[in-house]
Amino acid sequence: MEIITLPGAANWETLVKRPRIDHSLVNDTVTGILEDVKTRGDEAVVHYNHLYGGSGHKNFTVSLAEIEQAVSRVDDQLKYAIHTAKQNIEDFHRSQKRPVKKIQTTDGVLCWRKQVPIDRVGLYIPGGSAPLFSTLLMLAIPARIAGCKNIVVCSPPRKNGLLDPAILYSASLLDLKKIFKVGGAQAIFAMSRGTSSIPAVDKIFGPGNQYVTAAKQLIQLEGTAIDMPAGPSEVLIIADGKANAAFIAADLIAQAEHGPDSQVILVTENAPLIKKVSSEIRRQIRDLPRASIAEKSMQNSKLILLKNLDEAVAFSNLYAPEHLIIMVENPHKLASTINNAGSVFIGPFSPEAAGDYASGTNHTLPTGGYARSYSGVSLDSFYKTITFQEISEEGIRQIGPVVATMAEAEQLSGHARSVRIRIASLKKPGI
Amino acid sequence: MEIITLPGAANWETLVKRPRIDHSLVNDTVTGILEDVKTRGDEAVVHYNHLYGGSGHKNFTVSLAEIEQAVSRVDDQLKYAIHTAKQNIEDFHRSQKRPVKKIQTTDGVLCWRKQVPIDRVGLYIPGGSAPLFSTLLMLAIPARIAGCKNIVVCSPPRKNGLLDPAILYSASLLDLKKIFKVGGAQAIFAMSRGTSSIPAVDKIFGPGNQYVTAAKQLIQLEGTAIDMPAGPSEVLIIADGKANAAFIAADLIAQAEHGPDSQVILVTENAPLIKKVSSEIRRQIRDLPRASIAEKSMQNSKLILLKNLDEAVAFSNLYAPEHLIIMVENPHKLASTINNAGSVFIGPFSPEAAGDYASGTNHTLPTGGYARSYSGVSLDSFYKTITFQEISEEGIRQIGPVVATMAEAEQLSGHARSVRIRIASLKKPGI
Repeated sequence: MEIITLPGAANWETLVKRPRIDHSLVNDTVTGILEDVKTRGDEAVVHYNHLYGGSGHKNFTVSLAEIEQAVSRVDDQLKYAIHTAKQNIEDFHRSQKRPVKKIQTTDGVLCWRKQVPIDRVGLYIPGGSAPLFSTLLMLAIPARIAGCKNIVVCSPPRKNGLLDPAILYSASLLDLKKIFKVGGAQAIFAMSRGTSSIPAVDKIFGPGNQYVTAAKQLIQLEGTAIDMPAGPSEVLIIADGKANAAFIAADLIAQAEHGPDSQVILVTENAPLIKKVSSEIRRQIRDLPRASIAEKSMQNSKLILLKNLDEAVAFSNLYAPEHLIIMVENPHKLASTINNAGSVFIGPFSPEAAGDYASGTNHTLPTGGYARSYSGVSLDSFYKTITFQEISEEGIRQIGPVVATMAEAEQLSGHARSVRIRIASLKKPGI
Repeated sequence: MEIITLPGAANWETLVKRPRIDHSLVNDTVTGILEDVKTRGDEAVVHYNHLYGGSGHKNFTVSLAEIEQAVSRVDDQLKYAIHTAKQNIEDFHRSQKRPVKKIQTTDGVLCWRKQVPIDRVGLYIPGGSAPLFSTLLMLAIPARIAGCKNIVVCSPPRKNGLLDPAILYSASLLDLKKIFKVGGAQAIFAMSRGTSSIPAVDKIFGPGNQYVTAAKQLIQLEGTAIDMPAGPSEVLIIADGKANAAFIAADLIAQAEHGPDSQVILVTENAPLIKKVSSEIRRQIRDLPRASIAEKSMQNSKLILLKNLDEAVAFSNLYAPEHLIIMVENPHKLASTINNAGSVFIGPFSPEAAGDYASGTNHTLPTGGYARSYSGVSLDSFYKTITFQEISEEGIRQIGPVVATMAEAEQLSGHARSVRIRIASLKKPGI
């Protein structure tokens, strides 16, 4: 933990910088995988699964029997938890539907927008150190609510060649059928291009390691949309002297256990709090199962003392954290001044973990400062919005001359004519 | 014009393919410009402006005097037209604001989303063969409505070193102050990185040539957001036997005059219509000022006869056109089955040109099939959406155990503890 006391504004730019991840180091490898998946399809998928994951099973399609077996192996307590989380995530994402609103901008000129589901979406669910069934819930629930017709799921198998039962149980709850035991860059390319077994999709969602991220960047250039650029997870906590140091330490540790590259920051106006939080961290981290990971990312963590809470907000807005926890008196007043963050947790009883799993909000959020311009995944992410307009005879009479004038000024006479020919058709002889 | 009669479904995939634009040909040049702008800033901007645009003026910042002079040089008819368009675009985009909706997903668990303007946006307005002041309206109006604090505009100067008066007049109407006479890749990099004169921005909007597009792809990898991938403009018209062939021809020509790479398609169930439209095109194109451009793109245009309107819709959805014009009886019924398109024009009096300028809809739309997963620019494009959640003591009692169960199943004990420590703090002694 680095304790930083009253840094000058000139140092802020350095303090908010994340370690730059240079994807060019893996780009050659990833480009090679892309070419191979293009040429050999499923065969290449099996090859790289084996090379990187350990499981070289030729059949990587999840069978109905596998799903049934998984369902029987998840205990009731976890089933109940997943059900409850699903309900909350559904409620919140369903509330995000936008009704069609027709606007008459001029007499006879009607304009509106309509959300239409993206037909084919691919969900990448990381396996690695932990089976992230929560990510499957966060991506598949809005995909289902939006009405995406084809939902493809890829996730790397465990050493035994199977997916974690909780992932398959969640998939069965959501009635997902196209599930493939494929991980890494090969999964992204297979979903982007399509293979004999894996259907091609229009947009790919989900976090992943450096290879997955580099692969997503590559397919974006080739025409498949992605949810957002991904990076290591982050939390920033703004707290005042009255905040509970143990809660703060617990939240910082929770973020730190994600991975050694997690970003963990506390900003406060209260010097004694920093001391209390440091000693709480040391106390709580000791017997954490993932202590070695958490300790590594804690080495890069920053506990920053600033002059006052206004500075704390300014710092947070400059940092643009993925997760922001606010533990101050009058948190709402402070929250209203937040303008760069992925997801904000207000008050002492709103830990980040609640939003990671079950409050209902989405946990797929912009990292690395992307919150300055990107939003987290929401129902919107699974739609595209089509604009419609309908112009009546009266409408074209009204705006036609305006269109023609502007088109001529842009030297686009054909545009002007396409309007004039319509107006001319309306003129009755003799008028 | 290529007339295609009843193509088999197997040929559709080929028919909907756009000519692939290989940006790698310009990537070396563009990467060189990026490095130079990083090192030399304004100096590099002047250098490339001179090298590619012709104007090598050291001072590329638009002055107040230039704006005032431009305002006096735009005639009243054009001023009136721009005012009217501005009003309609404002009305439609203002209607897209989303109210904050708080959802209680569980007792004591409140979740909501809030749209917050992106602080710093850059608008690229192409110059080239025509001064696209309409694009400035389409980008700056929603940026102003969203409340983006810093709006930077770049546009390539004409040979005389100035911007088109209509562009500056539009900018003055919208109270834009930071306008720079800079075009090409250097404009994109200057806005992305910032120079002494040009402020850095978080997201860049606007169409451009191949260099601009390649530059936008590059800065996206480096962390600046972009509106969408850009490509040549397109229109697809679905028409039945009762449609007006002269209107159809006029709309196809209007699209064709954009550039030699414009994509122009008619699909119909009516063979005689194709004949009528071909001869109308020949008749109307003759005295078009941009006839040579339109004729070039007309060479790649396709007039396609399909079995029926259901097939026409299926073809259009597969093609995913930027602009779709529907000229059939009962256009609404057909429009309701459209699921891939940028902007849809319904009925005989809704030419694409109306949406290009003044109906109120945005003309910055996904091309090249991107309408399968991307939306056009809208008010949303200038916001990011932040999620908030507030959990009460009752709320954490309710969902805490669920969170802890799921976190343990994902092997994230620190997450579970961050919830349990809070629940434990609520337990009264003796209970």
